[in-house]
Amino acid sequence: MPATTFPLNVGIYIYQGAEVLDFSGPYEVFSTANRLAKPQHLFNVFLVSEQNQPVIARAGYSVNPHYSFADHPKIDVLIVVGGVHTAELKKPNVIGWITQTAANAKLVASVCTGAFLLAEAGLLANLRVTTHWEDIADLRRDYPDLTVIDSQRWVDEGKFVTSGGISAGIDMSLHLVARLFGLALAEKTARQMEYEWCKHA
Amino acid sequence: MPATTFPLNVGIYIYQGAEVLDFSGPYEVFSTANRLAKPQHLFNVFLVSEQNQPVIARAGYSVNPHYSFADHPKIDVLIVVGGVHTAELKKPNVIGWITQTAANAKLVASVCTGAFLLAEAGLLANLRVTTHWEDIADLRRDYPDLTVIDSQRWVDEGKFVTSGGISAGIDMSLHLVARLFGLALAEKTARQMEYEWCKHA
Repeated sequence: MPATTFPLNVGIYIYQGAEVLDFSGPYEVFSTANRLAKPQHLFNVFLVSEQNQPVIARAGYSVNPHYSFADHPKIDVLIVVGGVHTAELKKPNVIGWITQTAANAKLVASVCTGAFLLAEAGLLANLRVTTHWEDIADLRRDYPDLTVIDSQRWVDEGKFVTSGGISAGIDMSLHLVARLFGLALAEKTARQMEYEWCKHA
Repeated sequence: MPATTFPLNVGIYIYQGAEVLDFSGPYEVFSTANRLAKPQHLFNVFLVSEQNQPVIARAGYSVNPHYSFADHPKIDVLIVVGGVHTAELKKPNVIGWITQTAANAKLVASVCTGAFLLAEAGLLANLRVTTHWEDIADLRRDYPDLTVIDSQRWVDEGKFVTSGGISAGIDMSLHLVARLFGLALAEKTARQMEYEWCKHA
């Protein structure tokens, strides 16, 4: 197991219209990995939103964030999810929070159109990135300083890791577990979840 | 497209300790299929719990059910999920609600250890069924009148469909979409979700 200091705080940013599987998939991966690693405590996984009130995700799915921007603990691994993300792009406080939180995080990841939020925050300049297949062309057009890849389920650029749409966030999260705490734990997590992990990006 | 009357009400039963992906996976599938089928309205998807209050699913994930036992609309497709299900097995009102709701449903499905709840309600007698790989032996021991299969991601016995653990509920839900409204919509849904659907049980 690599010498990562733990537990790591995994903060998943959610918002109105967020895609349900974009956040529940990574939540399942990190919390299952944590359970399987017991008695070691590897991850604290939590949902963060702008305010401390229920978030109505896509298709009317109502979830209660653990923390708001104002009261969340330090985030080591920031995950920004996709969905109906366009309103978020236009909120200076959201983009500002992402910028600031990313600066203090060890790892920053996006699922699906969450890549647009990281790009808007200026975090992906000159990096190879990906997003949902449906949004590849828009990401290229809107942020021409990115190299947008359309043939991988996720793209690992060190501190910044972006994934394709929805389910690809599960594959990426398993990859992050492997990177942080070894392949054996990630494989055990996938098996527990009965998930056919696309292990190679 | 088969001549199924729609929209169908898809009610997903959740409870304290329910596995996050067991309910969020099927929620994503049916709501995405519904979105992709527009302007047709194929599914109303909702979460049902015993009471109208937040449900703390596994690993502290807090979700707000749309309805309680007392106020939910008619359920055409009942999905019973797994997770930490043992307390549910001992609740006569839960088992009674499942029995009654199943009697009036067109389709009844379980994800993961949700099969134990259907079995306890006496719904699976003499059927071929499955559950999470870790719980196969227990299901065989506790309900000897079932034929428990350990080599399929889901088992379709007509009105009753059971799936393996966690992610297998996504494969089963896509199968139900295909059964109800055709393979093309299920394939389109899987592609939208970037999910590698195990199309054959």
